[in-house]
Amino acid sequence: MEISPEIHNKLVQIVGSSYVFLDQETRNHYGHDETEDYVFPPHVVVKPANAFEISEIMKLANEYKIPVTPIGGRTGLSGGALSIHKGIGLSTERLNKILEIDERNLQVTTEPAVITQVLREAVAEKNLFYPPDPSSQGSCWIGGNVAENAGGARAVKYGVTKDYVLNLEVVLPSGEIIWTGANTLKNSTGYNLTQLMVGSEGTLGIITKIVMKLLPKNSNNVLMLVPFYKANEACEAVSAIFRAGIIPSALEFMERDAIDWTLQFVEGLNVQVPDAIQAHLLIEVDGNYPDILFQEAEKIMNVVEQFQIDEVLFADTEDQKNALWKMRRSVAEAVKANSIYKEEDTVVPRYELPKLLTGIKQIGNKYGFKSVCYGHAGDGNLHVNIIKGDMTDENWNTEVTKGIREIFELTVSLKGTLSGEHGIGFVQKNYMDIAFSKVQLQLMKGIKSIFDPNGILNPGKIFPDS
Amino acid sequence: MEISPEIHNKLVQIVGSSYVFLDQETRNHYGHDETEDYVFPPHVVVKPANAFEISEIMKLANEYKIPVTPIGGRTGLSGGALSIHKGIGLSTERLNKILEIDERNLQVTTEPAVITQVLREAVAEKNLFYPPDPSSQGSCWIGGNVAENAGGARAVKYGVTKDYVLNLEVVLPSGEIIWTGANTLKNSTGYNLTQLMVGSEGTLGIITKIVMKLLPKNSNNVLMLVPFYKANEACEAVSAIFRAGIIPSALEFMERDAIDWTLQFVEGLNVQVPDAIQAHLLIEVDGNYPDILFQEAEKIMNVVEQFQIDEVLFADTEDQKNALWKMRRSVAEAVKANSIYKEEDTVVPRYELPKLLTGIKQIGNKYGFKSVCYGHAGDGNLHVNIIKGDMTDENWNTEVTKGIREIFELTVSLKGTLSGEHGIGFVQKNYMDIAFSKVQLQLMKGIKSIFDPNGILNPGKIFPDS
Repeated sequence: MEISPEIHNKLVQIVGSSYVFLDQETRNHYGHDETEDYVFPPHVVVKPANAFEISEIMKLANEYKIPVTPIGGRTGLSGGALSIHKGIGLSTERLNKILEIDERNLQVTTEPAVITQVLREAVAEKNLFYPPDPSSQGSCWIGGNVAENAGGARAVKYGVTKDYVLNLEVVLPSGEIIWTGANTLKNSTGYNLTQLMVGSEGTLGIITKIVMKLLPKNSNNVLMLVPFYKANEACEAVSAIFRAGIIPSALEFMERDAIDWTLQFVEGLNVQVPDAIQAHLLIEVDGNYPDILFQEAEKIMNVVEQFQIDEVLFADTEDQKNALWKMRRSVAEAVKANSIYKEEDTVVPRYELPKLLTGIKQIGNKYGFKSVCYGHAGDGNLHVNIIKGDMTDENWNTEVTKGIREIFELTVSLKGTLSGEHGIGFVQKNYMDIAFSKVQLQLMKGIKSIFDPNGILNPGKIFPDS
Repeated sequence: MEISPEIHNKLVQIVGSSYVFLDQETRNHYGHDETEDYVFPPHVVVKPANAFEISEIMKLANEYKIPVTPIGGRTGLSGGALSIHKGIGLSTERLNKILEIDERNLQVTTEPAVITQVLREAVAEKNLFYPPDPSSQGSCWIGGNVAENAGGARAVKYGVTKDYVLNLEVVLPSGEIIWTGANTLKNSTGYNLTQLMVGSEGTLGIITKIVMKLLPKNSNNVLMLVPFYKANEACEAVSAIFRAGIIPSALEFMERDAIDWTLQFVEGLNVQVPDAIQAHLLIEVDGNYPDILFQEAEKIMNVVEQFQIDEVLFADTEDQKNALWKMRRSVAEAVKANSIYKEEDTVVPRYELPKLLTGIKQIGNKYGFKSVCYGHAGDGNLHVNIIKGDMTDENWNTEVTKGIREIFELTVSLKGTLSGEHGIGFVQKNYMDIAFSKVQLQLMKGIKSIFDPNGILNPGKIFPDS
């Protein structure tokens, strides 16, 4: 069903004619995110100004059973913002203000369409610290981070988005506006609607305000890049570091190809990689006391030297640190520039990483695909980029699907799961049966039906088609 | 409805005759916890051996619509384990094993009926750290901690129970046995059933296995007791400490009476309190590096010296530390020994503590009751013990109820809520309308009905009567 003139008029009445778009260009623009090469344009794009307008839109959509897809920064990797069932594409872009940085309580209240890095820098100016830092922090929005429960490099020490969200203002599919909890660090008052909303990928409500806790900013860090001759040993070193009693503030893994492609893609990164190196760990420790950080770096050296490594690079200047982080954060883009690819977001208990990596390569061999692996190894969170290269479309659609299924079966057998931080969205939903039984999926569908009895909010996501 | 011979026989078939109890003494014993002086005995007490037996019991209960109340360590303060609607009292006491301490992944898998302190000591032997430490840690069970989302003194730095739970095996009211998630540090795979279960007070399922993350154990701490001439200034100092960039590992507040009563109740505590002191803060910093801890303690001294304080006591020995912690942990028992009381578990953003404390005293004056306040001030979590003393039963039941309602209205107006760590259970449920609108309560009831369509699991809890 296209949007009728009647519905169009009603949308114009709610948000004003400047904020309703029917043209193909705008619809296409809002019909894609960073997920592969998918484009699913909505019938109409609307840009409400606030929760009240969103509420009116939801009431209208409910009355006429029109699908509504909440659209944020469109940097997602699981297709959560794609208007699979067309209908209304609801961009939250006008809800883009940091409402209050509360220094007395170490909290921030923000609207969803604030770029994560902008938020991090705004609180840093007040000597406060918002730790979650997805690789896309320069473009992703905090609302999307909450919707997908985004992680990032610092999650290994500081936790993911969910660990900072205290309270949410949400427009329910019915149009009702609620707060999910309270602005408190502890809360044992009824069911945890806040944590149910975090990571629900825009299927239970539209987030319009976010209250998050902050930490005092710490002032120092040490960053080191450790080259390993064997990729598996890099993975083994990960849990060895924790077992030595150290909690790094970042512990990132990059396969050889990830680095090579990135060095070609990003200009001016002055990193030399000897031929025989198979993988790197990028390791950071942070805190307020430089002496202690050097002691911890030394402990880490003692651990990694038990493996076959080349010379460790310590980033001595801010420029060097920025270059190493830019390298790490550019891997996904570099791979994307190189080939069509599918990105899986596997996660396992961290000791199982070597088994996971070995298994992924074996599965790739079996089904004829190459993969580039990297990610937040300290969390057991390995991004698997499956490269199309010169594979035929047929094999890309059949063999790779079988291979991905086997990869996920492997992660689940290792007590892991499908997604660590990207969400299930559109592209992973038909693998959900691997992680969950019918009973579990029925519970989740039941919860969805309580929030959204007409199934109008972000349909076609999370739940398998059959 | 009493338990019929037919049901009794079926229960005996499931768990064996040694584990089904109809005698009044056993039923009374399992009919109370630490909540005021309430006793609600079930019709029958059963002690299943494992999840499979619990599953069979739930199927039977569902078929015959018999209420089932899960019973843990019975140390709860909100009446969650009371068999309000009689029926089956299901004690999990035989599920009492720590199943695996996984040193490679820094995780522990445990059954619910393990005493929290036993669990903490077991992992400490492997040099690992399970931070949550409710004051009742010597007697409460980890399963109950998960059910109520228990906190404790260390939550201020390390978070509460929910921050450690990765995955739960749960018997649903239907008898189905599920895992709620995966054994991973990050998880963006479907709705967060794990966090929905944590803090749901035994109303959504019966927890039979718990997978929790652990930290490396740290080796040192500094503990100091700071006497304040004004209780409000003690509260003000709390947020000032955080604003100075310090995250203490404990920051506890005790009103004068709390200390006096405890010193009378617990023998051998060698603490002298000058007459004019109105309150104390008990402050701990922890870490691996003693020099750093002394620096941090000095920073804290700089903050607290801006207020009117008496001489600060530094605990020099383990014995002194244990004595101070024993004093703090014994407050609730000391108050209980002194008078019948009601304990409220208010929580607000920490900067609002002075307003909360002042407001509580004003409300007490208005309705004619005395209160003793203490708690986890670093989290904004203030326990309010309302003392019956020589109040008439009539005033105890009418005036105090009105006063509690005003206290909760105050907490909510300060962006706080009803319970920080004790749960709502039986005794707070009729105040839920203060924290939640009908819309929010309907969502929660809807979730309950998805898990428990017949409403047989722990009925009479969380949701208001009307």
